[in-house]
Amino acid sequence: MNYPHNRISTTRPGDDEAGIEVTQAFERFVQRDDIFTRAMWDDTVRNKKSDAFFASYRIEAAPRRGDGFGTRDFALRNASWLVSDMVTNRHVAEGRREGFQATISYDTPVAQEKLEIDDPAAMAGEIKRVAKFFGADLCGITEIDERWLYASSVDVRDMSEAPLGLPEGLNSVIVLGHEMDEELVATYPSALAGAATGREYSHEAAIVMQVAAYIRNLGYEAVSSMNDTGLVIPYALKAGLGEYARNQLVITPQFGPRLRFSKIFTNLPLTHDMAKPLGVRAFCDICTKCADACPVNALPYGPPEVGGANRSAIKGVRKWTSDAEKCFSFWAAQASDCAICMRVCPFNRDFRRLRHRLWLKLALSRFRRFALWLDRNRGKRVKPSQWWKRAVS
Amino acid sequence: MNYPHNRISTTRPGDDEAGIEVTQAFERFVQRDDIFTRAMWDDTVRNKKSDAFFASYRIEAAPRRGDGFGTRDFALRNASWLVSDMVTNRHVAEGRREGFQATISYDTPVAQEKLEIDDPAAMAGEIKRVAKFFGADLCGITEIDERWLYASSVDVRDMSEAPLGLPEGLNSVIVLGHEMDEELVATYPSALAGAATGREYSHEAAIVMQVAAYIRNLGYEAVSSMNDTGLVIPYALKAGLGEYARNQLVITPQFGPRLRFSKIFTNLPLTHDMAKPLGVRAFCDICTKCADACPVNALPYGPPEVGGANRSAIKGVRKWTSDAEKCFSFWAAQASDCAICMRVCPFNRDFRRLRHRLWLKLALSRFRRFALWLDRNRGKRVKPSQWWKRAVS
Repeated sequence: MNYPHNRISTTRPGDDEAGIEVTQAFERFVQRDDIFTRAMWDDTVRNKKSDAFFASYRIEAAPRRGDGFGTRDFALRNASWLVSDMVTNRHVAEGRREGFQATISYDTPVAQEKLEIDDPAAMAGEIKRVAKFFGADLCGITEIDERWLYASSVDVRDMSEAPLGLPEGLNSVIVLGHEMDEELVATYPSALAGAATGREYSHEAAIVMQVAAYIRNLGYEAVSSMNDTGLVIPYALKAGLGEYARNQLVITPQFGPRLRFSKIFTNLPLTHDMAKPLGVRAFCDICTKCADACPVNALPYGPPEVGGANRSAIKGVRKWTSDAEKCFSFWAAQASDCAICMRVCPFNRDFRRLRHRLWLKLALSRFRRFALWLDRNRGKRVKPSQWWKRAVS
Repeated sequence: MNYPHNRISTTRPGDDEAGIEVTQAFERFVQRDDIFTRAMWDDTVRNKKSDAFFASYRIEAAPRRGDGFGTRDFALRNASWLVSDMVTNRHVAEGRREGFQATISYDTPVAQEKLEIDDPAAMAGEIKRVAKFFGADLCGITEIDERWLYASSVDVRDMSEAPLGLPEGLNSVIVLGHEMDEELVATYPSALAGAATGREYSHEAAIVMQVAAYIRNLGYEAVSSMNDTGLVIPYALKAGLGEYARNQLVITPQFGPRLRFSKIFTNLPLTHDMAKPLGVRAFCDICTKCADACPVNALPYGPPEVGGANRSAIKGVRKWTSDAEKCFSFWAAQASDCAICMRVCPFNRDFRRLRHRLWLKLALSRFRRFALWLDRNRGKRVKPSQWWKRAVS
């Protein structure tokens, strides 16, 4: 199969504001190189532990070993994935692991009658309202930038490359943010904390499908997407939802890094949001809490660089890049996902609270060193058993 | 097929506290007599309008006719049902319309290893915490009372009776409450308001499946159920979630009548909640706002009575009973569900707010007439277009 767009190296308007720096070495990312897909076919990643990691999402194969990794912890984590799993597994027999290695198939068709849209700005406001109605915590809209579409998708029958299969003529990406549970994130690393991840995957599966169905009901194409089809981070940056950080996460003014993103590709006429630089880059320049806390040293020190440690890093983009092989090796060792880098991030706060909003102002100002000092005792791990104790009181 | 338990007429402890009065004329309800199932097979209910009602849940068959019934309104309503529809349709080919005429099939098995439960009270607290984690707004637990199980379920291939198919040895029902959107409920009758209904069906489908998966992961049976298998209202009353009202709804101290209920049948060791009489009965005795507002006079005046207008009413229970045929005829005429009786109910308030909590104290005291007078200007319909205007501002 031929993927003619595998090499495109142009910059685009708004890159600077979004903190995106693409070099001549840029290549679109081939999805079968992502670390999770490699764990299926690449013997330099796949091993007994990585197989056991995936198997642990069935309770009978989950290893028990103390606080945070007991029966209840795995039981809750695995249950939290249920809706996502249901969506993901519907078309696996045809090679489509939807939401991860393929877009989510349409449950309802595009209505034959097209609603006339004379005000794309009003329509953008409407979509944001509808997204929030269905439970999205954040919503931004940007153009489809093909640099961030994968060069190819994955057929999970043999882990070969497959076409993305997006309809022709789409032009916008609606990016949705889904807050992760603060109390559970505080318990990373633990299988319990993984319930915060699974619950948001289940939420996002439901929400992208409902918002997309709404758009299709108006007569427009709308393709629901989770981790498949493209890199959501640059879209989230371009859609003005936040700024990229050393820990590989998008820092938002609402929840800091404590959220997941999903997306919908559409041709509904919509005005686009603008990237909003906040000042996170300057803060990350003086803060290495995430890199210091990473048990396998998968996170970078120093300034952003082009490229990364292995084929799971995108080529030709200057950014902070993790070593995905090291990162995933820790997930496999734990038999659960890890986000210590999210837990310890000074921006991991609930900015609905005034005192955290005041701290945010400080952190994004020239007093950032003082803000970092104020954060010195935060981000400590809460024992998973504490969460359960509160449950039964 | 033989359903030996079709006639059982005993009272049970706690009936009085729950406001449940069962007479010797009691018969378990046969699900094919519910008004929605009758609309599939009974020519006294089924007609062009009822067929058009069901068809309208596909956007191309939704009739457009002005404010609240435009393209956007039907588009949102129909999209809101998506997750529920996905669950419901998975096994229709085998006659199981899950969540409505059959229980929801297990996506994950009961774990072979059973977690030892030495404290059923602590376990009940844990389940309530887990239910809230997955998004339930209320959770109560009671015994399985076979009076409220249907005498038989429905095979939707030919609308014949089918066995309930619950596993042996279950003893508890976990009842979950799901708050409906206050702003949308204020727009009843409208297709837009139906999005509040559909969204909660989608929520409840996801939540009962996740909570049940959690329990099965602990090694116990747990069957997810929405409208299928049994009457949820008496279980909600026995589980202490609220008190029955003239409008056929359960009044809760959190959201009044503005919520839906789902349930999980299980053998997990759990202590049971007690019914909590609030004083709603005395209020409904002096209030007929719901009956006055019903456009087809489907709601009763006067005190609770035994029996009802037609076969869709349960036999031998003294209660306020609607005329389901009249009620559904209005749904069919509107091509959307109606809950005017929920909108106009004086208890339709958000009791998280202090002033509404003060009103509630009054309404449940001997000053109930004063509370009713204070309510005289509430419950008016908000124009659906108002909701959309706020969407785009």
